Amino acid sequence: MTAPLSPQEIAERIAEVMYANDMTSQALGIEVQAVAPGYAKLSMTVREDMLNAHKSCHGGMMFTLADSAFSFGCSAYNKMAVAQGCEITFLAPGRLGDVLTAECREQAQAGRTGVYDVEITNQSGVPIALFRGKSRQISGDIVPGLTPKDTAKP
Amino acid sequence: MTAPLSPQEIAERIAEVMYANDMTSQALGIEVQAVAPGYAKLSMTVREDMLNAHKSCHGGMMFTLADSAFSFGCSAYNKMAVAQGCEITFLAPGRLGDVLTAECREQAQAGRTGVYDVEITNQSGVPIALFRGKSRQISGDIVPGLTPKDTAKP
Amino acid sequence: MTAPLSPQEIAERIAEVMYANDMTSQALGIEVQAVAPGYAKLSMTVREDMLNAHKSCHGGMMFTLADSAFSFGCSAYNKMAVAQGCEITFLAPGRLGDVLTAECREQAQAGRTGVYDVEITNQSGVPIALFRGKSRQISGDIVPGLTPKDTAKP
Amino acid sequence: MTAPLSPQEIAERIAEVMYANDMTSQALGIEVQAVAPGYAKLSMTVREDMLNAHKSCHGGMMFTLADSAFSFGCSAYNKMAVAQGCEITFLAPGRLGDVLTAECREQAQAGRTGVYDVEITNQSGVPIALFRGKSRQISGDIVPGLTPKDTAKP
Repeated sequence: MTAPLSPQEIAERIAEVMYANDMTSQALGIEVQAVAPGYAKLSMTVREDMLNAHKSCHGGMMFTLADSAFSFGCSAYNKMAVAQGCEITFLAPGRLGDVLTAECREQAQAGRTGVYDVEITNQSGVPIALFRGKSRQISGDIVPGLTPKDTAKP
Repeated sequence: MTAPLSPQEIAERIAEVMYANDMTSQALGIEVQAVAPGYAKLSMTVREDMLNAHKSCHGGMMFTLADSAFSFGCSAYNKMAVAQGCEITFLAPGRLGDVLTAECREQAQAGRTGVYDVEITNQSGVPIALFRGKSRQISGDIVPGLTPKDTAKP
Repeated sequence: MTAPLSPQEIAERIAEVMYANDMTSQALGIEVQAVAPGYAKLSMTVREDMLNAHKSCHGGMMFTLADSAFSFGCSAYNKMAVAQGCEITFLAPGRLGDVLTAECREQAQAGRTGVYDVEITNQSGVPIALFRGKSRQISGDIVPGLTPKDTAKP
Repeated sequence: MTAPLSPQEIAERIAEVMYANDMTSQALGIEVQAVAPGYAKLSMTVREDMLNAHKSCHGGMMFTLADSAFSFGCSAYNKMAVAQGCEITFLAPGRLGDVLTAECREQAQAGRTGVYDVEITNQSGVPIALFRGKSRQISGDIVPGLTPKDTAKP
């Protein structure tokens, strides 16, 4: 019989499993820098194929980075959750070669609803975008058996 | 001396120029189905590399499709515009092989601010996501010389 | 034994009951102009006590009008629903004495989640604000016995 | 000749002037608890005439409190600013007699655009709603002469 995992160990294990299955984050070269319960920090380098018609980083690519950070942050408790909706505000353009970092922090949990804020900055620390995501926990664990059985009603 | 282009001709010309420069839309296999002043219809087939850890279409990929439709829709007047912010609500998952269509319609223009709504549906007509984007016109034309000179103040 | 009410009759009956209990809408002089399944049209005259520090209609008063329209629109099926979140974009100021009309239309229903759009215009038809509200149906009927018993799981 | 006011003194002076003119905040019994540059804390007690049809605090009243906090927070530099749009997420109901407190914090300034987050809690510290507002500075000062002349271009 082994000791139960700590919340930090669970968050790290979930991140590994999720990243291994997240084809989009892999395809975009997104890297997981750090995770913790309710927290995730991911980075992405802006490539040629992430540029829009105006030669700056496509808003969808910035959103995808933020959305992945949101997903890793809100999954760190091993509870299955779906994104209900997200909002993004663009503050400054991302440029070819920029290394963008998205930091996701939990703002609130109320019942099965969670609110997570993500800030994207570039390699100079300039804020590039703010993102707010809303999640809803559904039945089931991400990695079955990793945490005590989910007995909450949907 | 040639006759000035109609708004529809301008919208189509802008879409061609934009698509030729939009590396992201090209990389994702996004296709422009139709454009008109304040309107755009784009489609994308969900590929393996667009899946998230739960094997449904990554929210960022759906957002990117909608954001491209928004960009084509709000650029159709040949005025340079930047996205200020966007909001997306997820209604149903996209699956591998789904053909998603994003239809962008202008909802309002007030001064230099525009509001555009995008609906994403799948090949069965099921609504997958609703997106609302806000644009702000800045100085300059997308294709200089295509329309009368922009004399508005920023 | 009486014939069951039509959806339109149900919508009207719900609106009566709701308005009679909605102290805020009453206090602000909001009037219900029309309701239908998934639809509501409400109006409000901008009073002195609805002005902000800049002497235009307080954003919160415009939001309240829109939120009431949203509430009447999404309640018209007699299913209890809560607002999860709302977004409002301000397009033009409301002025003292303006008669603002908010029209709410259902955009989507997916499971227990609904998306409703509200447009506020003034007496000249000028768009003043756009609002998008998201609702979630919970257990229970607004007026018990008015419609067949709700047997859906939460 | 007097010493120039400190940023804190300016924020407090602006709040006094704004409150004196803000008919809505006065009518709702909203009180300004604290202000600082980019920050404001306001409170409001939920009255009978702030209840909705379900006997909880009307979403519009919660939004109004948050919007006032946003307005005081983003005005504290004495630059005229307009709200472009706001988003609110409802986490828990407000009840009759609850004392709601809205705390507004500046999240980002990029050019003339500002992003402000407001958290509403009740007297027990329970989070009731999260609000995000976007402002845009326009020409002019709120109290002319209080700060160095605004020379920025719109």
